[in-house]
Amino acid sequence: MTVIAVDANGADLGPAEVAAGARLAAAQGVEVLLFGPAAQLGAPGRGVEIVDAPRSIAKDENPASAVRGAPDASIVQAARAVSEGRAAALVCNGSTGAALVAAQLHIRRAPGIYRPALAITVPVPGRPVTLLDVGANPDVRVEYLVQFAFMGAAYASAVLGIARPRVGLLSNGSEPERGSQLVIEAHEALLERTADSDALTFVGNVEGDGLTQGVVDVAVTDGFTGNVTLKVIEAVSQTMLLTIRDIAQASTRGKLGGLLLSGGLQPFVEEIDPEGQGGAYLLGLRQLGVVAHGSFTRHGIARAILRARLGVEEDVVGRTHRALDAAGALRPRAGVPAAS
Amino acid sequence: MTVIAVDANGADLGPAEVAAGARLAAAQGVEVLLFGPAAQLGAPGRGVEIVDAPRSIAKDENPASAVRGAPDASIVQAARAVSEGRAAALVCNGSTGAALVAAQLHIRRAPGIYRPALAITVPVPGRPVTLLDVGANPDVRVEYLVQFAFMGAAYASAVLGIARPRVGLLSNGSEPERGSQLVIEAHEALLERTADSDALTFVGNVEGDGLTQGVVDVAVTDGFTGNVTLKVIEAVSQTMLLTIRDIAQASTRGKLGGLLLSGGLQPFVEEIDPEGQGGAYLLGLRQLGVVAHGSFTRHGIARAILRARLGVEEDVVGRTHRALDAAGALRPRAGVPAAS
Repeated sequence: MTVIAVDANGADLGPAEVAAGARLAAAQGVEVLLFGPAAQLGAPGRGVEIVDAPRSIAKDENPASAVRGAPDASIVQAARAVSEGRAAALVCNGSTGAALVAAQLHIRRAPGIYRPALAITVPVPGRPVTLLDVGANPDVRVEYLVQFAFMGAAYASAVLGIARPRVGLLSNGSEPERGSQLVIEAHEALLERTADSDALTFVGNVEGDGLTQGVVDVAVTDGFTGNVTLKVIEAVSQTMLLTIRDIAQASTRGKLGGLLLSGGLQPFVEEIDPEGQGGAYLLGLRQLGVVAHGSFTRHGIARAILRARLGVEEDVVGRTHRALDAAGALRPRAGVPAAS
Repeated sequence: MTVIAVDANGADLGPAEVAAGARLAAAQGVEVLLFGPAAQLGAPGRGVEIVDAPRSIAKDENPASAVRGAPDASIVQAARAVSEGRAAALVCNGSTGAALVAAQLHIRRAPGIYRPALAITVPVPGRPVTLLDVGANPDVRVEYLVQFAFMGAAYASAVLGIARPRVGLLSNGSEPERGSQLVIEAHEALLERTADSDALTFVGNVEGDGLTQGVVDVAVTDGFTGNVTLKVIEAVSQTMLLTIRDIAQASTRGKLGGLLLSGGLQPFVEEIDPEGQGGAYLLGLRQLGVVAHGSFTRHGIARAILRARLGVEEDVVGRTHRALDAAGALRPRAGVPAAS
């Protein structure tokens, strides 16, 4: 049975909520190795093993020095459990920075990968798009973006079940010659590297409004633009819902209208709830990582754990490697000539 | 009376709609010099002078060669009218690329400005934010971003009436050390250049979700990220409205609910309509340019013309220059030492 290492520290609702999420996931047949303050985690429950690891790395600590200075921290122990083969993937709920550092240090980059990336499936109504990188690499190079395309496509096909995903390059215009200098060069490199790939279809540039139009399954960008884009999408959709709710509350007429609409709206509100997607996938490592959102309840946390299992069972890591290898887009090893 | 040069070509609804917008604006006391196919523009009307200029530059032409190769094109003639003092500002409705090239070629950069930028006031419910650059400069340098801060602040104070606007630097984290290398350096430069300025308050980094939270009046970024951000905001808000409308149409109960809510929703729908803001301001030139959205009706076009007049009368260009000069952020002239 697949074992997932889960860090119980750092969630907004506290370690007990993470433990509750772990028990929910275990009830679906996954085994959880749960790292956190045992005193707060309750009874482990069937399928959950607790490792007492009270030390938490706070969001305001410097991730690099905190991870290096606290080998007993729960996130570090959880990452080590994955690197040592005691678990197949890592799920965490705290500081994304600490998770990134711990994962890179212990799980390490997969062979031939330049940089790991954070991928998230964006809650656009009816037309989810997987966006990467959403924050691991504020500065990128052309070859990173090429790899992100294959990493995102492997995730979309393995976890979301999309055969041969359509991948777009986020830009400020649809024509190949539009974009920053880096994006223009990445467009060219992607055309070349993906021409013979059966892992994905490169559809060219996609603009900001293309993200809501169902024209791509995966959108590739640097971690700076991706992070801004993700936060804008979440913020605008939540702000709109709250505004409409306020308008409905402002009058008797509005209240009645809101009440009549609310049944129909509910599935939509759930669809765009970030909790539904189970968090961000950390791609490009030797094994998978999932970073759940700090605000998640037990349901989002269970979802993150189950998504991690799906990623393991559907072999996101292996699919990524094979597709990159076939495309000649793996990082050349020192002394080994690059594939032509 | 202030004269505004308007290009009637390129609007989705055709030159006649632009002419109708010009007449609406003229009724508010502005004079319009209207360049376009006279045969399609109808009677000029009081305050509108028509210059027959049927040649239109299409969106799919290369802007640089089209503008240079067609001195009789309406956008080129309109830009020349501004540079020759026959009009005080330029309003156009067609290709943004052609407008940018024509404006840079004929109106030219203001002294000490590195690069002009496109600024747009983003329709966030209740908390509008002016975002720049939204597409003129996909690649920027630190000193461009510093100037954008002052350009955006001058616009926000002159046209939107915001005293000492709060300016943020768009980034993937709120801490000064978060961002791409360029943004981290721009943060430092902005802190230094704005410390003694009474033109604006630099509030540090703002994240994507900060754009909807009313924490800044102006958000500064490169033209790549700004363009993606703007299109995402517009697309997500319009997609949400359409989805809610569809849900309301799907059942009798929903229809009644939608009907009861619609009165309350109407001001909100108008608030987030891009037409309400009159388009994008082209800042950093010797005189103002406004690029209306191609989809605008006569009302949005009239709004763009009236906003251009306000920008002229409130001296956006002069305010920008004085604030940059006081901050020592003007581009040094060859042979002249930079202000310390």
